[in-house]
Amino acid sequence: MPELRKDPVSNRWVIISTDRSKRPTDFIDTFKHEKKGGFCPFCYGSEDKTPGEIIAIRPAHTGPNTPGWQVRVVPNKFPVLRVEGDLNRRGDGMYDMMEGVGAHEIIIETPEHHKSMADFSFEQVQKVIWTYKMRSQDLKNDSRFEYLLIFRNYGEAAGATLEHPHSQLIATPIIPKRVLEEYTGAEQHYKYKERCVFCDMIKQEMKDGTRVILENKSFIAFAPFAPRFPFETWILPKIHNSDFMTISEEQSYDMAKILKDTLLKIKIALNDPPYNYIIHTAPLREKDGHFSHWHIEIIPKLTKVAGFEWGSGFYINPTPPEEAAKYLKEVE
Amino acid sequence: MPELRKDPVSNRWVIISTDRSKRPTDFIDTFKHEKKGGFCPFCYGSEDKTPGEIIAIRPAHTGPNTPGWQVRVVPNKFPVLRVEGDLNRRGDGMYDMMEGVGAHEIIIETPEHHKSMADFSFEQVQKVIWTYKMRSQDLKNDSRFEYLLIFRNYGEAAGATLEHPHSQLIATPIIPKRVLEEYTGAEQHYKYKERCVFCDMIKQEMKDGTRVILENKSFIAFAPFAPRFPFETWILPKIHNSDFMTISEEQSYDMAKILKDTLLKIKIALNDPPYNYIIHTAPLREKDGHFSHWHIEIIPKLTKVAGFEWGSGFYINPTPPEEAAKYLKEVE
Repeated sequence: MPELRKDPVSNRWVIISTDRSKRPTDFIDTFKHEKKGGFCPFCYGSEDKTPGEIIAIRPAHTGPNTPGWQVRVVPNKFPVLRVEGDLNRRGDGMYDMMEGVGAHEIIIETPEHHKSMADFSFEQVQKVIWTYKMRSQDLKNDSRFEYLLIFRNYGEAAGATLEHPHSQLIATPIIPKRVLEEYTGAEQHYKYKERCVFCDMIKQEMKDGTRVILENKSFIAFAPFAPRFPFETWILPKIHNSDFMTISEEQSYDMAKILKDTLLKIKIALNDPPYNYIIHTAPLREKDGHFSHWHIEIIPKLTKVAGFEWGSGFYINPTPPEEAAKYLKEVE
Repeated sequence: MPELRKDPVSNRWVIISTDRSKRPTDFIDTFKHEKKGGFCPFCYGSEDKTPGEIIAIRPAHTGPNTPGWQVRVVPNKFPVLRVEGDLNRRGDGMYDMMEGVGAHEIIIETPEHHKSMADFSFEQVQKVIWTYKMRSQDLKNDSRFEYLLIFRNYGEAAGATLEHPHSQLIATPIIPKRVLEEYTGAEQHYKYKERCVFCDMIKQEMKDGTRVILENKSFIAFAPFAPRFPFETWILPKIHNSDFMTISEEQSYDMAKILKDTLLKIKIALNDPPYNYIIHTAPLREKDGHFSHWHIEIIPKLTKVAGFEWGSGFYINPTPPEEAAKYLKEVE
């Protein structure tokens, strides 16, 4: 019998379709690995093919926009939002609009074109995380921005247009709808229980154990109770904290470890699937950190979103999270 | 400069990315047409390969589950929700769940396996619409159901697993999140203006004209002001009505005409792209029809949903709706 489950943060229901239950091997042929080759603007020697670098982790003897860097941040050459100008909010009859002001940066995660983040060293993943933090702290100073969204698209089916390992950061002049939804849900729980909904979740997951995939001193990775997608995995800091950019150096190493290990398990279990990961953190101008709790959501791209999902906001997930967690836990 | 636009119903912002503006020909290679061939359970002669038919439009001299039908409705052999049993709402610690009770039916739209709805006769499309209505009226009698979602997935990239032309109907025991969101947005507008937000939209679109694609006595098709996707098209009845299943015979013919003609324009302009369409109608138990307004949303599948969209609920659309409408209007 299929089961309807409710996500306690967003109040989104999902259908866990046990009758159609899918194992990792059922997904393996749903995507293709095509290495494109050819010119890459993110490789050593192409530094002049991107807009000038914003920051880079590089040895002191190398100059900006030259090889030698380990992580490099540049503005997106084709930004979805533009950093110049004012919002100019206005109407057209009943409709509302504003200028597309924001920032759109690319975090080039390594000079090694063909390496997947699952195969990075822990130190390299930590450098990427630290770069996310540095860029976040800088962009927060721009008072036009209300939110920073850091995400990674891996593989063509997940929306990556360039193969070279990279993440993206988009600063938006409004708080995005989905962020607000999560935030409002967490606030409701806080008002009712006087506790953080994510802290409650961590406690229940640790006690129950069936959905936990990995754990270290500072972080836990688990399959959420009501996942939209097969093998969806969340990584949360165990200690309550609403704001990603306050992460300490020690925590960033623990985060690098659990992120890399989780991605490696997904790569092995599912034959290197396309995926997205997204850092969910508090809105920039939020002073009240009681109820939101920053985390990463990893979404392997194994199923297609179709009319039912678009029309209802309801997701059909053919792999119960308890099974997904079991598979991933068993991967060495 | 990119523009941020807000949908007046859902309050969802989208980024209209004018710098990356894409014309119909830019999308043509983003999908593949692969005709699969082989056995089809929806063709004449395979009537015993589906669960027994619920209703069919067929000549009086033909018996159920035999060839001769023009439209045929059967339960989905692999339903995402099951029609038997009780909801049995329950908790597990902080989590909530219930049984996956509902209905999942397939509307086989024609015996002709290779025909696209864009190439149906108006009469055939009207028969499909009338079948939607009949099934809706019947399922409404089941008091466990709160919502009926009618949708069509066309093409593999849009989630269709069988090639033979068909739509689906899923009855859910709760009002889906996205439906509630739209409903709440329309209610807010009604409370503020004492008018239906969709009626306001129709008036502004007809006056403005730049986003209108087609029109007849009862219906209008236009590109919405803040579309999530390139060439997204909405079809609305011009006269206020919240409930699809009250459609009259005359209206159903006008709907068939505008739906078929719109799909044909999309097929010609975009080289037969995959798409989803969804009928948005009022929740079943809703008595107050002032502010919601039933309609169809057609979503061609031309772009990929990536980390930014999943994380923010914000959509990046590379084709301004004014340009999309212009292209579609010019198609003969």
